[in-house]
Amino acid sequence: MTQPVNNLKAWRHLEAHAGRMAGPENHLSKLIAAPNRLAGFSASGGGLFYDFSRQRVDADVMATLVELAGERAVSRCFADMVNGEIVNRTENRAALHTAARDFSGRKITVNGVDAAAELSRVNAEVREFSRRIHSGELTGTTGKPFRHAVVIGIGGSYLGTEFVAAAFAPAADKNIRLHFLPNVDIDCFGSLVQSIDPESTLWIVISKSYTTTETMANEAQALAFLRENNLDPKDHIVTVTAKGSPGDDPSKPVLVSFHMFDFIGGRFSVTSAVGGVPLSLYVGFDRFERFLAGAEEMDNHAASAPPEKNLPMIAALVSVWNNNFLGYPASAVIPYSTPLSRLPAHIQQLYMESNGKGVTQDGHPLNTASGVIVFGEPGTNAQHSFFQLAHQGRHFPIDFIGVIRPHFESYRNRSKGVTNHQELWANLIAQPQALATGKADPENKARHFSGNRPSSTLLLNDLSPENIGRLLSFYEAKTVFEAFIWDINPFDQFGVELGKTMASDIRASMVKKNENPEHIIDDAGHIEKAYLDMLFGGSLKA
Amino acid sequence: MTQPVNNLKAWRHLEAHAGRMAGPENHLSKLIAAPNRLAGFSASGGGLFYDFSRQRVDADVMATLVELAGERAVSRCFADMVNGEIVNRTENRAALHTAARDFSGRKITVNGVDAAAELSRVNAEVREFSRRIHSGELTGTTGKPFRHAVVIGIGGSYLGTEFVAAAFAPAADKNIRLHFLPNVDIDCFGSLVQSIDPESTLWIVISKSYTTTETMANEAQALAFLRENNLDPKDHIVTVTAKGSPGDDPSKPVLVSFHMFDFIGGRFSVTSAVGGVPLSLYVGFDRFERFLAGAEEMDNHAASAPPEKNLPMIAALVSVWNNNFLGYPASAVIPYSTPLSRLPAHIQQLYMESNGKGVTQDGHPLNTASGVIVFGEPGTNAQHSFFQLAHQGRHFPIDFIGVIRPHFESYRNRSKGVTNHQELWANLIAQPQALATGKADPENKARHFSGNRPSSTLLLNDLSPENIGRLLSFYEAKTVFEAFIWDINPFDQFGVELGKTMASDIRASMVKKNENPEHIIDDAGHIEKAYLDMLFGGSLKA
Repeated sequence: MTQPVNNLKAWRHLEAHAGRMAGPENHLSKLIAAPNRLAGFSASGGGLFYDFSRQRVDADVMATLVELAGERAVSRCFADMVNGEIVNRTENRAALHTAARDFSGRKITVNGVDAAAELSRVNAEVREFSRRIHSGELTGTTGKPFRHAVVIGIGGSYLGTEFVAAAFAPAADKNIRLHFLPNVDIDCFGSLVQSIDPESTLWIVISKSYTTTETMANEAQALAFLRENNLDPKDHIVTVTAKGSPGDDPSKPVLVSFHMFDFIGGRFSVTSAVGGVPLSLYVGFDRFERFLAGAEEMDNHAASAPPEKNLPMIAALVSVWNNNFLGYPASAVIPYSTPLSRLPAHIQQLYMESNGKGVTQDGHPLNTASGVIVFGEPGTNAQHSFFQLAHQGRHFPIDFIGVIRPHFESYRNRSKGVTNHQELWANLIAQPQALATGKADPENKARHFSGNRPSSTLLLNDLSPENIGRLLSFYEAKTVFEAFIWDINPFDQFGVELGKTMASDIRASMVKKNENPEHIIDDAGHIEKAYLDMLFGGSLKA
Repeated sequence: MTQPVNNLKAWRHLEAHAGRMAGPENHLSKLIAAPNRLAGFSASGGGLFYDFSRQRVDADVMATLVELAGERAVSRCFADMVNGEIVNRTENRAALHTAARDFSGRKITVNGVDAAAELSRVNAEVREFSRRIHSGELTGTTGKPFRHAVVIGIGGSYLGTEFVAAAFAPAADKNIRLHFLPNVDIDCFGSLVQSIDPESTLWIVISKSYTTTETMANEAQALAFLRENNLDPKDHIVTVTAKGSPGDDPSKPVLVSFHMFDFIGGRFSVTSAVGGVPLSLYVGFDRFERFLAGAEEMDNHAASAPPEKNLPMIAALVSVWNNNFLGYPASAVIPYSTPLSRLPAHIQQLYMESNGKGVTQDGHPLNTASGVIVFGEPGTNAQHSFFQLAHQGRHFPIDFIGVIRPHFESYRNRSKGVTNHQELWANLIAQPQALATGKADPENKARHFSGNRPSSTLLLNDLSPENIGRLLSFYEAKTVFEAFIWDINPFDQFGVELGKTMASDIRASMVKKNENPEHIIDDAGHIEKAYLDMLFGGSLKA
């Protein structure tokens, strides 16, 4: 059995450090006054720059955190993951998202399957497929070229792709609009079909098992829609699914099926065909491949850089410090870049589904807090929304994300003497500083800022596909590093099962009522029954 | 001086109740087993249904919370607000968002101004303006009818309207697309102008002071864009701003200026011209007026229903209970309705900016926690994103929101025997129940659910404009009720000032460098300087 994390020597030392860091002499305004603060508390690697100078750490804290990573053999855990070991033990699976962008040519075998070769085969298929769509060689039933692609998929089959697609949007030059149909809500489908042209629409149905309830319900809507428009599913539907799933069944022909594998989980799958098919259609396979290359660069950095120079490792250690030692229950991700608007939603899933766990790998209750709540909106929007609370209400750490060169560099009009991009950066630079230093106002307490509110800043050179890949991989590595410290499994998600089971019971009641409108619902609890009565009655109870 | 809230008798009783409610006999699975649980812990009013049966409260807790509201005279504070008293004392202003939808005809005077009459005058102007746009009487410089409206505004000048516009989207039949340009980020502007036709675009610039930095920078971009396209600002720009502001200046002519008033704050302004102008263009003034009528109905309910039957009051009291007595630091808003996708972002601003405060009305440090972190995404999407953590990680209360009848009722294909809307509801019904009851699995701890995780469910009959108005008003009233309990000012936002001041200093450094590229930045701290060097150098530091 693995030692509980809070029995480790480094953990106990960190508890002592936390007491020390709470003292007024370690207020952030004091810490950042040291002239070498930034040099000592920032790192470059994998193509990104990470500044943790405004975190409530000093050299001793960082050294002890690195010891914790050592005691926990976090780097070895990461190597095991990359090498295809069965690191997802509760589901007896490997976790090989890194193999999806491993261009080294090395063999990675899982249960006798050459995973790298399989992923590479699928990528070649995606490349060829997107070429044939873009060239107009493949068309819809009526011969019209495809101008819309709709992703039917939810959770990990959608959020990552949505984030990356938004980041790529200004470069989307393939004359294909990308839409998402994640929610089973009929208003999601209804709105969507108002905005597409049926004859020029390709549907991409993404589900590993091809049994995901929401996805299957939306696939059924799409099939009915195709029928109504006299269009053939084998011209208009592609699937991304496990080999041999009901979505990869020759008796239900579709245009093409791309395989996904049980060694890559949904929330880690955007560099597989899950992201590959829609993103290649949207911006071309070449850009998708550059995105993979960026992710690979950060993967290699995460795997090889020593902990004290390893960006995602430092970020993970600081996150554990903030959570378990300083007691912050939540963390925000604030990209100062509109194209990164949906990064927070992606990280919210990636991090909270991976690390929102209550048991260790061995199945023992975890006796420390695990993952925090993650949320965010783009800056400067967020400043005009919830930053009031960030400055004067309860404290939470923030990841600020900045981009040195925007997509639309050519607009250089100045307002107040600066370009819009400079104004954005004036705020990006000011906010972490204001949160850290605060400003005493003994006269007017409503204008008093206590400061000492921690943040990091992560910088990208620009929004190139490579940098989006680096950013994605950075957060993936950070997420699993934290899990390795706690010794939890970041790759399973048994926590979603109970709700599914209970929804299934409610669905059974609904089916009876659908089959016989006279049926009196008698097999549900009194609260559930009241809701079913309102739904079937078509109005709120009096 | 007002008594500190934690000195009140009811507060001390609630602390005792909290200890009692932590016992295993008060686990939610036990509480909801009572056959009359729903009847006792739900309420209808103002057109909505609110179920708090899955909150960790019993009759004694609720009675004591109502006592707290009484000791704090929360209902009288609300009446003072509605009647135009100076409830925003730090800024010496009234808070009269309710007057924007008060159709009673009564007079509400603030500093000698008849506020209701002024708001009514502006509404008449908005009605007439939208009619002239829709009829084609007003066109762009080249005579083209308007097909795009762009809102330039940030924070409260944008988030509420964005939420309501998305809710109305399926009913948008005026042939006008609505766009938002909140962020100073040039990539926000760059992407926007790729998606509009200059000659048929109307720009709506919204800023009370007409000095908001982001909004002015984007207005400057819009003016340059109009010039480049040989279009006249007085055909293509309207402003929503305070009387006599730089946006209401006859020497800088625009098509029309609508007034906003200092007695309505940004985050409460969607029922004023701030929302009225864009929403009336988007869906017609009649629907906007129905939206106001719904808000008025809930306002009247909030003002007149006794606390124990008052929906936003109950919601506020339960929120304070969860926050100050049960210790939950965050809360999620999960609408099971795609058109309500941006409700969480609106509530995030409304609640966190209003209640993320550290001082009482009298300027004394608040010695309890104030507002929590609010976040959310639509269900069922959220189930496939962060609900793993909600079920097995750290606990946070959730507001589930359901809609009995969706917009697109006509799609009735069934999958697994149920329609998509029924499937959505099977989940909406199951999730609060699963969170509350949990499910013991002593054999396999990874599949163990501890339960006892609280939530409420708020139901709307449908997505009519009236119901969106009721929903908006519900959350506005809930927000201010909580503030009144703590005796904080929900209407100011001094917490955003320090960041603005510091951004201004950084901007000054940038201006010097813009004016003289040889300028060596020497007036910033070493961290700020490093960022400025990277920005002006155009790349990450080595």
